[in-house]
Amino acid sequence: MAFDVSEHSHRRYNPLTGEWVQVSPHRSKRPWQGQQEKTEGESIPPYDPTCYLCPGNKRSNGEHNPTYTGPFAFTNDFSAIVEDVPEGTIDDGLFQAKTEKGICRVICFSPRHDLTIPEMEVDHIAAVVRLWQDEYATLGSKPFVNHVQIFENKGTVMGCSNPHPHGQIWSQASVPVEPSKKQQHQAAYFEQHGRTLLSDYLQQEQRAAQRIVFENDHFVALVPFWATWPFETMIVPKRAMAAITEMTPAETNAFADAYKRLTTRYDNLFSVSFPYSAGIHQAPTDGKAHPEWHWHMVFYPPLLRSATVKKFMVGYEMLANPQRDITPESSAERLRSLSEVHYKKGKY
Amino acid sequence: MAFDVSEHSHRRYNPLTGEWVQVSPHRSKRPWQGQQEKTEGESIPPYDPTCYLCPGNKRSNGEHNPTYTGPFAFTNDFSAIVEDVPEGTIDDGLFQAKTEKGICRVICFSPRHDLTIPEMEVDHIAAVVRLWQDEYATLGSKPFVNHVQIFENKGTVMGCSNPHPHGQIWSQASVPVEPSKKQQHQAAYFEQHGRTLLSDYLQQEQRAAQRIVFENDHFVALVPFWATWPFETMIVPKRAMAAITEMTPAETNAFADAYKRLTTRYDNLFSVSFPYSAGIHQAPTDGKAHPEWHWHMVFYPPLLRSATVKKFMVGYEMLANPQRDITPESSAERLRSLSEVHYKKGKY
Ligand SMILES: O=P(O)(O)O[C@H]1O[C@H](CO)[C@@H](O)[C@H](O)[C@H]1O
Ligand SMILES: O=P(O)(O)O[C@H]1O[C@H](CO)[C@@H](O)[C@H](O)[C@H]1O
Repeated sequence: MAFDVSEHSHRRYNPLTGEWVQVSPHRSKRPWQGQQEKTEGESIPPYDPTCYLCPGNKRSNGEHNPTYTGPFAFTNDFSAIVEDVPEGTIDDGLFQAKTEKGICRVICFSPRHDLTIPEMEVDHIAAVVRLWQDEYATLGSKPFVNHVQIFENKGTVMGCSNPHPHGQIWSQASVPVEPSKKQQHQAAYFEQHGRTLLSDYLQQEQRAAQRIVFENDHFVALVPFWATWPFETMIVPKRAMAAITEMTPAETNAFADAYKRLTTRYDNLFSVSFPYSAGIHQAPTDGKAHPEWHWHMVFYPPLLRSATVKKFMVGYEMLANPQRDITPESSAERLRSLSEVHYKKGKY
Repeated sequence: MAFDVSEHSHRRYNPLTGEWVQVSPHRSKRPWQGQQEKTEGESIPPYDPTCYLCPGNKRSNGEHNPTYTGPFAFTNDFSAIVEDVPEGTIDDGLFQAKTEKGICRVICFSPRHDLTIPEMEVDHIAAVVRLWQDEYATLGSKPFVNHVQIFENKGTVMGCSNPHPHGQIWSQASVPVEPSKKQQHQAAYFEQHGRTLLSDYLQQEQRAAQRIVFENDHFVALVPFWATWPFETMIVPKRAMAAITEMTPAETNAFADAYKRLTTRYDNLFSVSFPYSAGIHQAPTDGKAHPEWHWHMVFYPPLLRSATVKKFMVGYEMLANPQRDITPESSAERLRSLSEVHYKKGKY
């Protein structure tokens, strides 16, 4: 019997974080009698007078949104990290704490309440990307901001409480746990090889041609070798860049194209608005040069078998180790087989 | 303005894992319009003829369960990690993988389909703990098993697909990600201080008297200083022991007592069968002495505000850093204020 990753229990190494994932391909045969998720109601109006994100509407702090026509950013009325905190530390044996300053922003992707990224025009997505670039630059240039996390929670199953298409940015003084793992491993790789880890990785993936979903001129969308979530993917620029602000206009458009095509395939997988948390990992804004950083966007979608059955990262996963039931190769194959015409747009 | 952990955004250090948690106390005021969880139906019969865990019933592999009367263990019919895999590795640049051998077990806590730990007698819980001790010893003594993870997923919201009270054990060749962090940090602490990290931590918590929920002769139940989940707790033995097999009979009973009292308070918090993932972190079974290990049981419950509103660890938390909205101190205070008489047993 020879070791076959498509059949045998194994562990894979994530060179970006230095952590392992448990892969159990044979386990996808197990029947599911557990919780079923609700699918989202599909009758969302283009404008909702009760939505605090729609143009012109009143927010919970009493302010009114402008009647914005493109993407629109504002400071979160319920920011988890705020600017106005006193400096302070607790340094008492095994009790260690310190205040954390930052700014949290909300980014409306569109004035339309009923759209999502895969349903938006590439031009309009590119405008969102340009706003991210501005925000990363502006927030990152503040002396107390050393890290800017751009992300989106999509779908109620991912804790999103408003269908109006939007994402968030949490900027702060410390480099958070996950990005600092990637910082450390990319720096070690760059030091040893003089190239970014993801440049070499992309070449290896292009040679293997097993996990790539699609490419355009400037980006590759793939299921990483070490993917944890069933349909986890990454969008990686072909050229090593530390941050999204380094993109040329052509790259910005190509990124918007990749973002739309990938999320369209996601929606087409189970003919449902596909939930996920997604976001961009890029260089800290600590004023240092970061030639080791190769920015990328990651997508962590919870669904496993259907529109209503998700992968539970619980028990063993929380206490011990991330674990997946289907192989990254088979997920990539399924995503590759799907159309890039959105299912709501008719037959495909 | 002085730094006040009950008001100001801050980060706390977890000395067991070496990672930080973001605490945003002010954020609990934010309104919630997102997903509501279903509460479990309360009409569970003591025996369910369709349950594959009830005594005498047929399992999916065709076998019949014995008509067991105490706790009962068997090998999982859908094990994520199995014994029968060929040795193998992939060592190809940034693609690194290796086969993983192990044994997965299911532990029925009781023949009664309708009970949960807080509703069981302390004696019967002690029998579960003794079975865990046996399993840890038996699995751990196999040459290819270096780690034994005992855990329970409780409630459909935690991916549990069968209300019959049960837990699992995944034993395997590698030490998983989370326990290996704790291994490393406890070893460094022990090397430096000659005492286990948790011995010193318990003393500090006893002096602080802010986060302890209750104690008995041999155990302390507390909300750790670095808790991530809203009502996360730990049960820690007062005496340093590497593994549960080192407990005296008196300690075994005291642990069962603490387990029942803590989970009863949990159920009483929102008058609902309180969901969580829980499990035991203890020494690897690699044949080495582990004087640095101080075993403990952790509870990660998802609920935040009510029986139907959970904390979503999504977006920022998945991509960047764990984050919590209420302080560990206020959670401990609420848990402390609750009765140890189960809400189903009438007024309290
Ligand atoms: O083994 P079960 O109960 O079928 O499955 C549950 O627990 C496992 C271990 O935590 C997880 O991997 C699964 O995602 C979860 O649904
Ligand atoms: O900020 P929101 O959308 O209200 O809240 C959501 O995203 C946050 C950032 O990922 C999480 O901390 C919350 O648990 C989640 O419900």
